[in-house]
Amino acid sequence: MVAAPGGLRFSASALAAFSRAALAAAGADEPSADAATRSMLHASRLGIDSHGFRLLPHYARVIEGGRVNGRPNLRFQTGAGAVAMLDADHAQGARAAYAAMERAVELAGPFGLGAVAIRNTSHFGAAGAYALAAAEAGFIGLAACNSDSFVRLHEGAERFHGTNPLAVAVPAGAGRPWLLDMATSAIPYNRVLLYRGLGRDLPPGAASDGAGRDTCDPFAVEMLAPLGGSFGFKGAGLAGLAEILSAVLTGMRLSPEILPMGGPDLSTPREMGAFVLAMRPGAFIDEAVFRSGMERYLGALRASRAVEGGTVLAPGDREWAEAEGRDRDGLPIDPDTLAAFGEIAARFGLGVPERLGTGAP
Amino acid sequence: MVAAPGGLRFSASALAAFSRAALAAAGADEPSADAATRSMLHASRLGIDSHGFRLLPHYARVIEGGRVNGRPNLRFQTGAGAVAMLDADHAQGARAAYAAMERAVELAGPFGLGAVAIRNTSHFGAAGAYALAAAEAGFIGLAACNSDSFVRLHEGAERFHGTNPLAVAVPAGAGRPWLLDMATSAIPYNRVLLYRGLGRDLPPGAASDGAGRDTCDPFAVEMLAPLGGSFGFKGAGLAGLAEILSAVLTGMRLSPEILPMGGPDLSTPREMGAFVLAMRPGAFIDEAVFRSGMERYLGALRASRAVEGGTVLAPGDREWAEAEGRDRDGLPIDPDTLAAFGEIAARFGLGVPERLGTGAP
Repeated sequence: MVAAPGGLRFSASALAAFSRAALAAAGADEPSADAATRSMLHASRLGIDSHGFRLLPHYARVIEGGRVNGRPNLRFQTGAGAVAMLDADHAQGARAAYAAMERAVELAGPFGLGAVAIRNTSHFGAAGAYALAAAEAGFIGLAACNSDSFVRLHEGAERFHGTNPLAVAVPAGAGRPWLLDMATSAIPYNRVLLYRGLGRDLPPGAASDGAGRDTCDPFAVEMLAPLGGSFGFKGAGLAGLAEILSAVLTGMRLSPEILPMGGPDLSTPREMGAFVLAMRPGAFIDEAVFRSGMERYLGALRASRAVEGGTVLAPGDREWAEAEGRDRDGLPIDPDTLAAFGEIAARFGLGVPERLGTGAP
Repeated sequence: MVAAPGGLRFSASALAAFSRAALAAAGADEPSADAATRSMLHASRLGIDSHGFRLLPHYARVIEGGRVNGRPNLRFQTGAGAVAMLDADHAQGARAAYAAMERAVELAGPFGLGAVAIRNTSHFGAAGAYALAAAEAGFIGLAACNSDSFVRLHEGAERFHGTNPLAVAVPAGAGRPWLLDMATSAIPYNRVLLYRGLGRDLPPGAASDGAGRDTCDPFAVEMLAPLGGSFGFKGAGLAGLAEILSAVLTGMRLSPEILPMGGPDLSTPREMGAFVLAMRPGAFIDEAVFRSGMERYLGALRASRAVEGGTVLAPGDREWAEAEGRDRDGLPIDPDTLAAFGEIAARFGLGVPERLGTGAP
């Protein structure tokens, strides 16, 4: 999790309204603007600011540039019974991913589980958003994608995989869903940027210099390390799993072949793949037994003894606590993003979102 | 991977014959003896000696003791279309897991994917064996289980999850399957035992003392750390995924509730769960496109620049190379295991397997 450094606070509804208006002005149809906004709102609420409304200026730019098709014609090509391929027609990534997960959930009704691979999509956003969509409907959800090359292999000395996230969400009875949303790199690149700003050393084994050697100096970082430190073959293997499901199973671009997110080319579609899966617990076991089992498991986990000064949490606990605070106090927007909002507002003739507590923008 | 320290060499066929005979004498029916032998042979060939024929004396003992039912009545309780629940009747773990994966593969024919959750099973063996069984049939295979409590949580100070493995295997065109078989702990416990024997320090962040503090002293280790070091919440989250699929989705025992593998109680069934899933690439994309995509991906991966003195490998490459050497030179059996083989042979009136190259036992 990368916290926005400082920043002013805004209501979720004001940011969402601004986001939808900006994306519509950039050329997005209503489902695309809604889906992109929903994914950014998810991330901004849960404290994953790297994938929150900070991305709005980028998403508007790539629709204007033509890289992303703001009015895609999504086509599901049904495969065998419980699987489908979605050709997303170069849609905004959240538009494709939510639609794919919705279909996976539909398939998991009669079949017990369902999987949808996605062709011709773009930047995925927070993978956990789509896994969570399944969990909120009562299903176990899994979402994965690859992304442009940024992480070395185990014992590797050049960028190969992207940060290739894996996300899983599980309905947890009375509590909020169990939610694991993890990059398969040791750290996200945003952590490097944050530590540059703070002048702090990175933890050992998290990033490498241009020769693939470990470095704790955030200014020397040329690539990220796979999760696992001395056991980085595990992190690289998990990145490979995301890569195979997203790119090989769809015939889309491998991480090293994906055009850089930041451009300069913002007009050529990135031809990315992704993958989602949904599973219905009630197809295996009585739903009530599953729900009470999750409650019992999470109760035992949260009661497990912590190291002195530490806290034991279930996946998602930190994020749900953050969301609660942000739902109360507003969502922070960092100054750079706020400046970019001002530019968008001017370009499209929109009002900037109102700051909380002041009535002022 | 934990190499057997020294040890004599035996042919795979001699060890397999001895294993089947010993398990049959202990009370296993033919399918159980075959499945357990197949899983141990898999591990011994690929260099995963912790799960190889070293386990034969244990497996024989728990069948004799009654913990494991050597003549189980496996019952598939069909759930929704593409999923099933297998009640394994306290079968040997490999017997249940191979049967479950076989059914998952059958389901993935018409449905594109299939999943089987397993109730009332026992020690899983090498998870990769079952994932590989799917890959050898042309399917993507996933296998997971939980196991007795041995790994602390992130910031935890007591044992909670087991080493809860996740294994995935993917058919790789002309080459051997891509094969990731990983404990979700930083290291396996056998590594600790090995380093005790060698008098070597453990890598940092891999294991903890009784207070949950990191220790590199293998003699001070009371629990293992989750994969990820400072980012151990990811390893603990992956362990949780294995736990949920294995124990919660089946209503079986959570890791802290599982009777210890080593006894002293060897008569009470351990009531463990496990989970397997198979996916048919051809349900998503043309099989030939998938195969050539895997070849292209693995070619790019293996050509990725290595750090000085390092080697970049795909998951499974090290294991397949080890298997090639062992198929040529024989499988090593460590002295303690060999002594246990002698006891088994005497108890059941069997000949001990012949050593390679000498004609002598």
